[in-house]
Amino acid sequence: MPETAPPGNGDQETDQDATASYPTTARTLPARGRARASYDRELVHSVLDEAYVCHLGFVRDGAPVVLPTLFGRVGERLYVHGSTGSRPLREAGTADPGLPVCLTVTHVDGLVLARSAFHHSVNYRSVVVHGTAVTVTDPEERSLALDAIVDQAVPGRSRDSRPADAKELAATAVVRLDLDELSAKVRTGGPNEEPEDLSLPYWAGVVPLARGYGAPVASDDLDPAVPLPHYLASL
Amino acid sequence: MPETAPPGNGDQETDQDATASYPTTARTLPARGRARASYDRELVHSVLDEAYVCHLGFVRDGAPVVLPTLFGRVGERLYVHGSTGSRPLREAGTADPGLPVCLTVTHVDGLVLARSAFHHSVNYRSVVVHGTAVTVTDPEERSLALDAIVDQAVPGRSRDSRPADAKELAATAVVRLDLDELSAKVRTGGPNEEPEDLSLPYWAGVVPLARGYGAPVASDDLDPAVPLPHYLASL
Repeated sequence: MPETAPPGNGDQETDQDATASYPTTARTLPARGRARASYDRELVHSVLDEAYVCHLGFVRDGAPVVLPTLFGRVGERLYVHGSTGSRPLREAGTADPGLPVCLTVTHVDGLVLARSAFHHSVNYRSVVVHGTAVTVTDPEERSLALDAIVDQAVPGRSRDSRPADAKELAATAVVRLDLDELSAKVRTGGPNEEPEDLSLPYWAGVVPLARGYGAPVASDDLDPAVPLPHYLASL
Repeated sequence: MPETAPPGNGDQETDQDATASYPTTARTLPARGRARASYDRELVHSVLDEAYVCHLGFVRDGAPVVLPTLFGRVGERLYVHGSTGSRPLREAGTADPGLPVCLTVTHVDGLVLARSAFHHSVNYRSVVVHGTAVTVTDPEERSLALDAIVDQAVPGRSRDSRPADAKELAATAVVRLDLDELSAKVRTGGPNEEPEDLSLPYWAGVVPLARGYGAPVASDDLDPAVPLPHYLASL
């Protein structure tokens, strides 16, 4: 099995002509908290790339539905996959021009404790993408998307596993959402406080949060001769 | 400052008459993956209580919007708060009977690596709640809700901080979503594999994931005489 390089996200090609910021629209300008909003392309990509689970929202029978799902990014495109039998993926394939969705990614970086209950908060980075999910039919793009979804969680893994066969591909729907209309929101730093609260006898500060990886647990039926791959050892 | 007991979530009172499972409806029965679905009240509560950030979906101008936000649970009710100027909270207050929402909570417990790309997955626990968000106006319920939101992230904290004053309360909108129509979904265990893949030379197994708390960082202006509270030391 050859050593594989991390796949990257195609930035080199896709960003050559890209501007540094995404344009704003009526729905990506927040009604409040504008100081926390950002449209910076590099920031948006970094927030997306650190995640592999997003929350995908769509409308069914007039009501909102929000489901967690894996995703992958390739340049300015996000991909989501699922069974061809799953409802949102079916709807993305039959709706014209596609299924209106909102795809949101959130990292919580810290609990922010202020002297006042009111100023309690969290430090976070989030990206909210609005758009239309369309079914991907091109075999090459589907393959690229499926690899990206695997590599989003474990960079380098797609080249170190058996690719999908014809039957598996036939059972898998892939939808695409372009990074056109979106915003990031970021909060960092310590608590806001009212000046008159500073002398109150309550602890104040931040509890940092981070994703914690445990030691990989091999399957019982794994041949002991198969080593732990480098891309897992470095997590 | 008195030592405070963890607040609990009111289970004792609220669950006395509750059945062990939530009823199913057309939209809480999944189109597929039914084996992973659960309506068990205790499981649903445990998944909700381990989280403090949810993804709240609603419909604006016919399109879905998904935003991350803090929440709290009190018995069979979830609460979300925000500025009275924020759009979804304004809409929950003006729509009749309220704002249709979908509130989703997800924990990712592990990355599941199979020999085949197709069988890659994640271990997770999620809860998807459908319903109508209504604005809470009763002062006592608003106070209970705001405490619950603070305590959801840091159990015991609400009693160890300055409660909101009249001006802060006037700036805060609180909405309620009842736990009536919902489902949980859980995946655990190792990868599914095709029998013919077992001899392939790829690592297979699970990388466990957990929330990682860092050491609390006190604000620069914190009086050094204020000790680290017990509810933070135990995180």
